Amino acid sequence: MITPVEAITKTRDKQPLTEAELREFIFGICDGRVEQNQAAAWLMAVRLNGLSKEETVWLTQAMIDSGEVVDLSSIEGIPVDKHSTGGVGDTTTLILAPLVAAGGGKVAKMSGRGLGHTGGTLDKMEAAGLTVNLSSEDFLRQVREIGVAVISQTAKLVPADGLLYSLRDVTATVDSVPLIASSVMSKKLACGAQAILLDVKYGDGAFMQDLDSARELARLMVEIGNGLGRRVMAALTSMDQPLGAAIGNALEFREAIEVITGRKKGTALERVSRQLASRLLFLSGVCPSVETADQKVNELLETGAAAEKLRELIAAQKGDPRIVNEPELLPQAPVIHQVRVLESGYLKSLAARRLGIAGLKLGAGRLRKSDPIDPAVGLILQKRVGDRLEKGDILCEVHAADADSAAQAEREVLKAALLSPDPVDPPADISEWVE
Amino acid sequence: MITPVEAITKTRDKQPLTEAELREFIFGICDGRVEQNQAAAWLMAVRLNGLSKEETVWLTQAMIDSGEVVDLSSIEGIPVDKHSTGGVGDTTTLILAPLVAAGGGKVAKMSGRGLGHTGGTLDKMEAAGLTVNLSSEDFLRQVREIGVAVISQTAKLVPADGLLYSLRDVTATVDSVPLIASSVMSKKLACGAQAILLDVKYGDGAFMQDLDSARELARLMVEIGNGLGRRVMAALTSMDQPLGAAIGNALEFREAIEVITGRKKGTALERVSRQLASRLLFLSGVCPSVETADQKVNELLETGAAAEKLRELIAAQKGDPRIVNEPELLPQAPVIHQVRVLESGYLKSLAARRLGIAGLKLGAGRLRKSDPIDPAVGLILQKRVGDRLEKGDILCEVHAADADSAAQAEREVLKAALLSPDPVDPPADISEWVE
Repeated sequence: MITPVEAITKTRDKQPLTEAELREFIFGICDGRVEQNQAAAWLMAVRLNGLSKEETVWLTQAMIDSGEVVDLSSIEGIPVDKHSTGGVGDTTTLILAPLVAAGGGKVAKMSGRGLGHTGGTLDKMEAAGLTVNLSSEDFLRQVREIGVAVISQTAKLVPADGLLYSLRDVTATVDSVPLIASSVMSKKLACGAQAILLDVKYGDGAFMQDLDSARELARLMVEIGNGLGRRVMAALTSMDQPLGAAIGNALEFREAIEVITGRKKGTALERVSRQLASRLLFLSGVCPSVETADQKVNELLETGAAAEKLRELIAAQKGDPRIVNEPELLPQAPVIHQVRVLESGYLKSLAARRLGIAGLKLGAGRLRKSDPIDPAVGLILQKRVGDRLEKGDILCEVHAADADSAAQAEREVLKAALLSPDPVDPPADISEWVE
Repeated sequence: MITPVEAITKTRDKQPLTEAELREFIFGICDGRVEQNQAAAWLMAVRLNGLSKEETVWLTQAMIDSGEVVDLSSIEGIPVDKHSTGGVGDTTTLILAPLVAAGGGKVAKMSGRGLGHTGGTLDKMEAAGLTVNLSSEDFLRQVREIGVAVISQTAKLVPADGLLYSLRDVTATVDSVPLIASSVMSKKLACGAQAILLDVKYGDGAFMQDLDSARELARLMVEIGNGLGRRVMAALTSMDQPLGAAIGNALEFREAIEVITGRKKGTALERVSRQLASRLLFLSGVCPSVETADQKVNELLETGAAAEKLRELIAAQKGDPRIVNEPELLPQAPVIHQVRVLESGYLKSLAARRLGIAGLKLGAGRLRKSDPIDPAVGLILQKRVGDRLEKGDILCEVHAADADSAAQAEREVLKAALLSPDPVDPPADISEWVE
């Protein structure tokens, strides 16, 4: 077959690897026939020379085949999944999962935890008292019975991704489009979904710095999915401001409840959640067009069917469904501090990354995977980009464990907010769709 | 300072590293603060993006400073060294060392062993019964007393090179001009020489495939040496045929004796050795010009002064100086077999790499550093590129341990010899000088 040095040499010299060669190299990384040093050198060659679309599809399949694959064949219909490439204040999963399930879609979702400045769905669910550790049998039974389950990904899926990711992290090879695309898609596909909706973030704090590179990544992920027989669509969304108002685990769960129960309307989070839910109902084959799906989503929210499904989900995963009607039952921070702007102007940006870091420092996030988090703390933004503020207006509410950390968060939040003397157009909810 | 990831990122993005950053990274590789994975990724970034001339000089100095440095300050004059980038049938060191010392130059030389198809001076010396393991004190005393010593390099010199080289070997990053240049020059400079003559090989079996890339490598090595305050010149020589007629350890030592005693005249090996010796006597400051050095070399060979110095060197390193006048005292192979050409034509090339491999298979070389070698076996070429051969003419004499290995070597030798129906010009001894 091919030696590790020969495989590295090919990528180094921009010669394509065959499917068999890529599989041998990736499996070799997993079983030790390829040294970590060799994998690291290959990753840098990929970072600098890229991979072809075909190679990226094969890489993804090889990564999937390096471990177990979730078998969703016992679930009727087309199971759907949704993935965001690392958001701040983005609770769409918590809104979409019950909303789509209420409409008849099958949401068998494995999620991740937050790391660094980004939040994670599992942390938000645990903050609201839900369990995220279900056996495979319970997971599948719950999806069959109520149409939705959201649990922690098992370590047995895509072991190659774990190995490659830990190498990429220390070798300055994280920001490679084919490596990001194959990492995301291998995990999604190994979870068994047949239809996948991607939310690719760009701008401050995202993997992709601008719309063009986000579009490139999204197109590649759609191509990988299609190449491996899945239906895939991707939304491109800016991180010039967080999607929702809340940043922090229980606060975000509460905001998701407010959207799904209709108590909070007309927000970007609500609009984006509606659009994503429509696409998922369309991709899953439940609705014949995006237009009929839009109508269905509207009904599910208006009639309370979505809120009822959320209660079912919470109950099934051992939470207290009363939190849907009484969100004050969620963990509450002892200190609530209002951050006021120090000058007047139009809000030009609310740097998502910096706000995520402010939340992290409050205790809402973690720097290492093993760090504990405080479920109650976080931020609630009171203004959106484009809003006019007068000096002394409230920009944000800080929910903190103590006054010191609240004061520190205030400084971070004020650094994140950029004011302009000239009027600013509010940004688009979703910049583009890629399919 | 700078983290390993930041350093890798700079080279990845073609941003120059500062001297301090390079030192920190290289020292980090030695003490473990930089992971081997990180070093491997950086090496690939260097292989693909290159390093600036300045960075390469700093890298070389950092590699030197990673270990001990030989102190030649107790030696009067300007100590000289000579390095060839891996030759086949190249015994110039054994000729130059006594020749230059006879002329008043100080040759304090640390040499290497052969690996793969290339020969090593230390193996040739041991095949002739000399010791190459001297203490530092004995080494320096010998140079002070007789002007020349050739010994094995100690492991304490340039440990960074050992680490980087073993990584390059498995990560397809060997053939990088700045990495080759810094590797060669760090070892030469750590050995303490103030004037260095380089012989950069190109073509079949060399690091550099053609004259242009050999020139690029030579220029960079001269610039590194000059940048670190040394006098450096480089000869570019083709590997279209081995420099000498002999390939194999005792056979090569014998050929060196024949050149230095004047028993074998008018060969490429003699002409090249004279030119290199002149340059070394000029670089060392013994002769004011290359022209006066040429005359001096002529005198040293004609008067027998060079041969006398070779006897002194052999005696000082515990060999038997009688081998200079009685080379039949050297190890002899039991089987001598004559290889005859199967067709007529002009000899177009004698692929040095293939001939080196033929020698290796006879037992003259080693695949791994720990392999034993047979001092007696090898080849003696009877023809040079440009010669006219008739079918049945003797091309080469095989010196073997047995008939089987002689027959195998014959097949290899015949594959190495390319005949042309049209006359072929003999190649230049030295293609170019770079200084």
